[in-house]
Amino acid sequence: MTEKRPFDILNASLDNSVLIRLKGGVEVRGKMVSYDVHMNLVLEGAEHLENGEVKRKLGKMLVRGDNVVFIAPSI
Amino acid sequence: MTEKRPFDILNASLDNSVLIRLKGGVEVRGKMVSYDVHMNLVLEGAEHLENGEVKRKLGKMLVRGDNVVFIAPSI
Amino acid sequence: MTEKRPFDILNASLDNSVLIRLKGGVEVRGKMVSYDVHMNLVLEGAEHLENGEVKRKLGKMLVRGDNVVFIAPSI
Amino acid sequence: MTEKRPFDILNASLDNSVLIRLKGGVEVRGKMVSYDVHMNLVLEGAEHLENGEVKRKLGKMLVRGDNVVFIAPSI
Amino acid sequence: MTEKRPFDILNASLDNSVLIRLKGGVEVRGKMVSYDVHMNLVLEGAEHLENGEVKRKLGKMLVRGDNVVFIAPSI
Amino acid sequence: MTEKRPFDILNASLDNSVLIRLKGGVEVRGKMVSYDVHMNLVLEGAEHLENGEVKRKLGKMLVRGDNVVFIAPSI
Amino acid sequence: MTEKRPFDILNASLDNSVLIRLKGGVEVRGKMVSYDVHMNLVLEGAEHLENGEVKRKLGKMLVRGDNVVFIAPSI
Repeated sequence: MTEKRPFDILNASLDNSVLIRLKGGVEVRGKMVSYDVHMNLVLEGAEHLENGEVKRKLGKMLVRGDNVVFIAPSI
Repeated sequence: MTEKRPFDILNASLDNSVLIRLKGGVEVRGKMVSYDVHMNLVLEGAEHLENGEVKRKLGKMLVRGDNVVFIAPSI
Repeated sequence: MTEKRPFDILNASLDNSVLIRLKGGVEVRGKMVSYDVHMNLVLEGAEHLENGEVKRKLGKMLVRGDNVVFIAPSI
Repeated sequence: MTEKRPFDILNASLDNSVLIRLKGGVEVRGKMVSYDVHMNLVLEGAEHLENGEVKRKLGKMLVRGDNVVFIAPSI
Repeated sequence: MTEKRPFDILNASLDNSVLIRLKGGVEVRGKMVSYDVHMNLVLEGAEHLENGEVKRKLGKMLVRGDNVVFIAPSI
Repeated sequence: MTEKRPFDILNASLDNSVLIRLKGGVEVRGKMVSYDVHMNLVLEGAEHLENGEVKRKLGKMLVRGDNVVFIAPSI
Repeated sequence: MTEKRPFDILNASLDNSVLIRLKGGVEVRGKMVSYDVHMNLVLEGAEHLENGEVKRKLGKMLVRGDNVVFIAPSI
C-alpha cells in the first residue's frame, strides 16, 4: 500500500525500529514510541551509530524534529 | 510540456524514481510515493549514494523537506 | 532597461539558461522553466558544475528556493 | 509505560540527570530542573563532556532550545 | 549626511557599484539596479571575487537577500 | 531553590558574572546587566575566551540572542 | 548607568566606533550611524579585521542584522 501523506510513515512506524539521520551526520536507531507534528520524536533503546556501527547505547531519547534529515524504518 | 509551477514536477514524478540532494551533501535515490507542501516526501527502495555509487540500501524513508537542495527525476 | 524589482529578472529569464549558486557551493546550470515566490524553480537540461566544468548531467530538476545564493542568466 | 507525546519525556525527567547533545557536537550533562515549550532548559551540576569524558564543570546552566539535537535521560 | 535608517544606504547606492559579502565567504561586486525589503537585489556587470581578485565575470545577477552578510558601496 | 521557568535563571543572574557559549564555539564572560525575551543581552567587562583563557578584553557588549548555545552563571 | 534593555546600548553607541563580530568569524569596526529593530546597521569608515589587524578598508557599509554575533563599543 502506498502512503498518501509523508507523515503516514511515522504513524505506521510507531513501536517499530527506525534509523534516523540528523544534521551534522549523527545517526541514531531505536524503537519510536511517539512523535508530533514538528517531527520531535521519542526513541527507546536508542543507539548512537557511527559508520553503521553502534558507538554507544543511550536508552530513551527525545530527538528534536528540526534536526532530522531522514527517518527510515529499519529493514 | 512546460511546468507552470515548480511543485508540478513533484506531482509528475509520483511513483517514479527521483534523485535528491540534501544539505550536507548527502544524496538519496528512490521511488517517490508521497510529498506535501513542505517538500517532506517518502521514498521506497531508497538508496544512500556517495559519489554516485550506492553506499547502502535504506528501503522506505521519510525525507524532511527543509533539508532538500534539489530533486531530479531520474533520467 | 533596468529591472525595477529583483524578481523581474526571474520573469525575464524564463525559458533561458541560468547559472545558480546554491548554499554549500554547489552550482547548477539549465533552462529555467518555472519559479515561484519562494524562489523554488525548475530547470531543464540541468548540469551540476564543479569549478565551472560539467560534473554530471541531471536533466529536469526542482531547486528549493531557500538554498539559492545567486542566480545569473547565462552570458 | 509509553510516552504519548514527545515532551512527556521532559516532564518525566524533571529533577533527574539528562545527557544533551547540542548542535556543533557539544554535549552537556546535568540535573534538569526546568524547561519550556521551546526546549529551553536549565541544568544544575552541569558538566561539559568531550568524547564522553568530563571536560569541565559548569554548575547551573541555561541551554537554548533551538541548539538541542537530542536529550537522553541518563541510564 | 547621516543615514537615518539602514536601508537608506541601499537607495542611495542604486545604479552605483557595490561590494557584497555573502554567507560562506563569497564576494560579488557590480552595479546595483534594484533591491527589495528582503535585501534581494540585482547587480549588473557582476564579478565573483576571490581574495579581492576577479575570479569570473557573471553579468546580470539576482542575489538572495538572506545570504547577505554586508553591502559596501565601492570606494 | 529550583527555577520554575528557564528564563528565571537570567533574572537571578542580573548584575552577576556569566559565561556564555555562542554558536561557532566562541565563549564570552562578563557581568550581565540586561536581557530581553529573545535572549539578547548586555555584558559589562566582557572578555573573549579561548580554551578557557582570556583572549582579549572587550568591555561592554551586546550579544545577539539567537547565537547563544548556553549561559552559565560563573561558579 | 546600567542599560535596562539590550538595545539601549545601540542607541548609546550612535556616532561612536563599534566592533562587530559576524557569523563565520568575520569582524568589522566602524562608526555606527544607524540601526533598526532587526539589528541591521550602517557603519562609516568601516574596516574588515582579521585577528585584530586591519585587513582592508571598506568605507560605508550596511551589515545585515541576522549575521551579528556581538557588538562591542570600542574601548
